[in-house]
Amino acid sequence: MSNLKLSVLGNGAAVPTAYCNPSGQLLTFEGNQFLIDCGEGTQMQLLKHKIRYRKLENIFISHLHGDHYYGLIGLISTFHLYGREKPLTIYAPADLEELIKHQLQVSKTTLNYELRFMHLENYNDDPLFESDDFYIKSFPLKHSVPCWGFVFREKPLLRKINREFIENKKIPSEQIVKIKQGSDFVDSDGVTYLNSQITIAPRKSLSYAYCSDTAYDESITKHIKDVTLLYHEATFDNSMETVASEKLHSTASQAAQIAKNSNSLKLLLGHFSARFKDPKVLLDEARKVFPNTFLSIEGRTYLIENK
Amino acid sequence: MSNLKLSVLGNGAAVPTAYCNPSGQLLTFEGNQFLIDCGEGTQMQLLKHKIRYRKLENIFISHLHGDHYYGLIGLISTFHLYGREKPLTIYAPADLEELIKHQLQVSKTTLNYELRFMHLENYNDDPLFESDDFYIKSFPLKHSVPCWGFVFREKPLLRKINREFIENKKIPSEQIVKIKQGSDFVDSDGVTYLNSQITIAPRKSLSYAYCSDTAYDESITKHIKDVTLLYHEATFDNSMETVASEKLHSTASQAAQIAKNSNSLKLLLGHFSARFKDPKVLLDEARKVFPNTFLSIEGRTYLIENK
Repeated sequence: MSNLKLSVLGNGAAVPTAYCNPSGQLLTFEGNQFLIDCGEGTQMQLLKHKIRYRKLENIFISHLHGDHYYGLIGLISTFHLYGREKPLTIYAPADLEELIKHQLQVSKTTLNYELRFMHLENYNDDPLFESDDFYIKSFPLKHSVPCWGFVFREKPLLRKINREFIENKKIPSEQIVKIKQGSDFVDSDGVTYLNSQITIAPRKSLSYAYCSDTAYDESITKHIKDVTLLYHEATFDNSMETVASEKLHSTASQAAQIAKNSNSLKLLLGHFSARFKDPKVLLDEARKVFPNTFLSIEGRTYLIENK
Repeated sequence: MSNLKLSVLGNGAAVPTAYCNPSGQLLTFEGNQFLIDCGEGTQMQLLKHKIRYRKLENIFISHLHGDHYYGLIGLISTFHLYGREKPLTIYAPADLEELIKHQLQVSKTTLNYELRFMHLENYNDDPLFESDDFYIKSFPLKHSVPCWGFVFREKPLLRKINREFIENKKIPSEQIVKIKQGSDFVDSDGVTYLNSQITIAPRKSLSYAYCSDTAYDESITKHIKDVTLLYHEATFDNSMETVASEKLHSTASQAAQIAKNSNSLKLLLGHFSARFKDPKVLLDEARKVFPNTFLSIEGRTYLIENK
């Protein structure tokens, strides 16, 4: 059973409050860890919530507004001070590279590990990261500075063959792979077994999309089609739709509309404006459009599954 | 009664832990607020501990190791987002100015208030800040990058004249000031009243010194002579004196020796290495040298007084 988990470290907007930290979340999939955004205090949130991040090798920064990256240099420094040796790759807008180098130069720090910068401007539909089992892509969001969303998609899983059938028919291993990929099977007597008779469909592949910060933008739905979980910013409520539009942010209802139009299974709201001490109003408004909506909670780890 | 208070926001060393944040503290004196160092998360610590900082107009950054300034850009941004209009002055090593400007440029931010940078390299014994009642000076510490300590000193207070004496003798106001400054008084009959007969000594002026980060350095005592409260780094315990020396940090005993030699009234230890979950060992070692020692506690506000 695959294990895709999302730990929300910060779900506030630009100004931190006593109850909301700036953006940051850790996505974990079978031994891989990905940090998405890294606002000030992200490393403290990891400590506070006892979330281990030793396997972190890839960080994704959506855009260069401070609430999405001010915590990055601190995390880089902490890794250095703890003697990290394995490389750390940062997928971010190009300008971040010079800034981080400037910060290291000011403190006369030469890292004892390699920092690799990958510029989001250089990818289009190409995956940022790909393994045998999954890939991560970026796509443009609609914000006041260049900004990208990210989507994690597990690759289609193989069909499952009945184990007894494999043993009884003494199916050679190269045939097993083909059957799992959808081929029919012909035994030594020339009898054909349709794939649908001898296999069962795998579970649906898991996926996760991160959309923050963005104005309502229908065009993003094509990038996040059918995701298992969508995290979408919901900075404002319905009464502030004009402000949201001006500031290139979304209302909770708009986030829900994106979830609905992209056929997402579940929606997690975040990036709450500091004015909402209790963001329940955002939940209520979003559920009217997309019932399977939840408010993200800092420190909570969500299992991303097909239900 | 003067009110000098110190709020400790972070007392950890370079690596934050679940119980220690990076350096930061707020010094408050009669409507003036001064932030000393601003490690990552300092603004969250202010929020968490419900410490208001609306009157903050001056920030002092001791040196450019990240645990002493990574939180500054976040605080600057928050002031901007909350519509601050009054200027903010930052006393820091010169290199910080370009770095902060670089950060603002990357996020395309034009602040709606003035940011004034004062370079610590340009002061020697001149005060960084001076009012009628007090001044703040910097002095060099002994660390791996240029680093400064800070000392706040209330100016000598005027002597107090018996109010009845003033009224009975109908002393003109210009004479009152002179008597308060120490002059004798001659009345209209030519009778001389010695200052010591007609006034009482004021309370001792209050003072505070901040020494972090520094190796043991006897030469700093001349700058912090007789302070009411000394905050001194105590990164290591006695068993690590060699490491402390190599890394240009101090042990708790060395901090206590500085407190003793400078004739400080009270010592507050901080900048604890992440290895000390319970820094009581540091307290015990320091008290053997300087009994009036305490461990700083994050979120606590200390009244600085002559006892």
